[in-house]
Amino acid sequence: MNTADMAQRIVAGERRALARAITLVESSRSDHRAQSQDLLDHLGSLAPDRQALRIGLSGTPGVGKSSFIESFGLMLTGQGLKVAVLAVDPSSARSGGSILGDKTRMEELSRDRNAFIRPSPSQTELGGVARRSREAVALCEAAGFDVILIETVGVGQSETTVAEMSDLFILLMAPAGGDELQGVKRGIMEIADMILVNKADGALKDVATRTCADYSGALRLMRKRVYDPEGFPKACTVSAWEGHGLTEAWADMQALAEWRKTEGHWTHRRSNQARHWFEEEVRQALLARLTEDPAVRAQMQGFSAEVAGGQLSASAAAQNMLKLLS
Amino acid sequence: MNTADMAQRIVAGERRALARAITLVESSRSDHRAQSQDLLDHLGSLAPDRQALRIGLSGTPGVGKSSFIESFGLMLTGQGLKVAVLAVDPSSARSGGSILGDKTRMEELSRDRNAFIRPSPSQTELGGVARRSREAVALCEAAGFDVILIETVGVGQSETTVAEMSDLFILLMAPAGGDELQGVKRGIMEIADMILVNKADGALKDVATRTCADYSGALRLMRKRVYDPEGFPKACTVSAWEGHGLTEAWADMQALAEWRKTEGHWTHRRSNQARHWFEEEVRQALLARLTEDPAVRAQMQGFSAEVAGGQLSASAAAQNMLKLLS
Repeated sequence: MNTADMAQRIVAGERRALARAITLVESSRSDHRAQSQDLLDHLGSLAPDRQALRIGLSGTPGVGKSSFIESFGLMLTGQGLKVAVLAVDPSSARSGGSILGDKTRMEELSRDRNAFIRPSPSQTELGGVARRSREAVALCEAAGFDVILIETVGVGQSETTVAEMSDLFILLMAPAGGDELQGVKRGIMEIADMILVNKADGALKDVATRTCADYSGALRLMRKRVYDPEGFPKACTVSAWEGHGLTEAWADMQALAEWRKTEGHWTHRRSNQARHWFEEEVRQALLARLTEDPAVRAQMQGFSAEVAGGQLSASAAAQNMLKLLS
Repeated sequence: MNTADMAQRIVAGERRALARAITLVESSRSDHRAQSQDLLDHLGSLAPDRQALRIGLSGTPGVGKSSFIESFGLMLTGQGLKVAVLAVDPSSARSGGSILGDKTRMEELSRDRNAFIRPSPSQTELGGVARRSREAVALCEAAGFDVILIETVGVGQSETTVAEMSDLFILLMAPAGGDELQGVKRGIMEIADMILVNKADGALKDVATRTCADYSGALRLMRKRVYDPEGFPKACTVSAWEGHGLTEAWADMQALAEWRKTEGHWTHRRSNQARHWFEEEVRQALLARLTEDPAVRAQMQGFSAEVAGGQLSASAAAQNMLKLLS
């Protein structure tokens, strides 16, 4: 595969080239890894200034995430914006499942020529998922998308992983009784820029309004963050079903993004993220040495067998192994 | 500090020696790490055969975990058993909080001479939390406790971490509508040996019974595991408040543990756990090299600054750094 050619096609907006490129960065084969690196380098020189608004979006199953993305995405494409939807699903390592797997959940958006929807690959470990998703985001950015929605379910570390590759982080919630408020992990509240309470329609409208007020109150109690203008982080109600609140939410997101750009927080955040991913890549590569070199792998297995058999304690074996590695 | 002497006091059941030893293993100072290793080696020779029943216990805030531990623990000490309660709280890395921090939540149990309650240390990262907790478990085991309850909140990876150091893993749940069933992560259901639906009393009794039936149904749909006898994993109702169901749950836990011992699964599980911790310790030590050596740390910081400044991509910097490390 000619990566220079592929890069040009991506920058020209060819969807098939983009799809193939994402498949390439998702592969863990070492020749594919080298090609991916090549491709990203080419794209870096071809389209260095293309910058999408990267919106991280988290919500547990049942909050209506797919319907929200469908309605919100169609509103954006209706304004002439190009929208990419990517999914980050670290839980697939265990369950083998995949989110966004069923494009029929976003029937209209998936047929929209200004939208690009990519389900998450299944069966990979977290480190890999993060790197692949990050590279897929870079590909979509180079392809000229204006908005990239990075979807995740609220499982384990996935929210912080997604926040680390997003400019804005949005938490989608369902209307709920006051008791469930505490169910939102504090750490997640702390990284949210907006909380959208979905399903503010029909019988749930009043509950949604109350839930939103509860979240607003909770957000006001949080420590003030330097990268927020007055009024942020904020909670709002939306109805993906009726379309209510979507344009307002989008106006808020744009206002927030603009403010951060003007104040220098946008660049600062992207710099910090690049730093984070550099460190993470070093860590992942170090750990990969334990499994990639057959000799090292054999040593690990040898000690492992002794530990399992009780001849050696886990700590003693670890110390021996580390001596061999240094 | 004389670790040989400390080991003897621990084996003799001196609580103050145990408390001091746990503080020692919680420290990350390198001289304390060496002493901890010494201490654990001594204990390994002094009390090689002491084996507690390690029960991992997870439940989100609000399910009544503290009340359950209080009632369940008092029932066990009432039978003459010695009970240790430890907390594993990886989330403290972020929030700075600590679970079990307030012993008053377990007022009676904390005054019981046959019980030992240890809150989680705050402000440490996950790898460290796991190692420290595991070593605290080993200390309590050497101190002659019959049952060790290892408590965690359902946050991120903490449940699998706790399951990896437990013989049984119990999920404590609150009565809830059918819709919330899906809120339990599938991966957590897969590692649970028993699901206890708490608060099966007063107005919530009927809901608890229905919730329990729902979980029973969900458990029956799961893949059969070789290390389960007929009827396990199972869901039961308990009331920490009224004391209902606690003796039955304990009888179930004992029956399960006995069956696994007889069938060889108990030893097999402990072997696999030792293997897991060996690998984990090697991984953590490898990563520690990035931060402990001042020269390496300086190199990392140098690249990090270039990445943040945009002179170098995260991937290119990572590759350069890895060359320096090899």
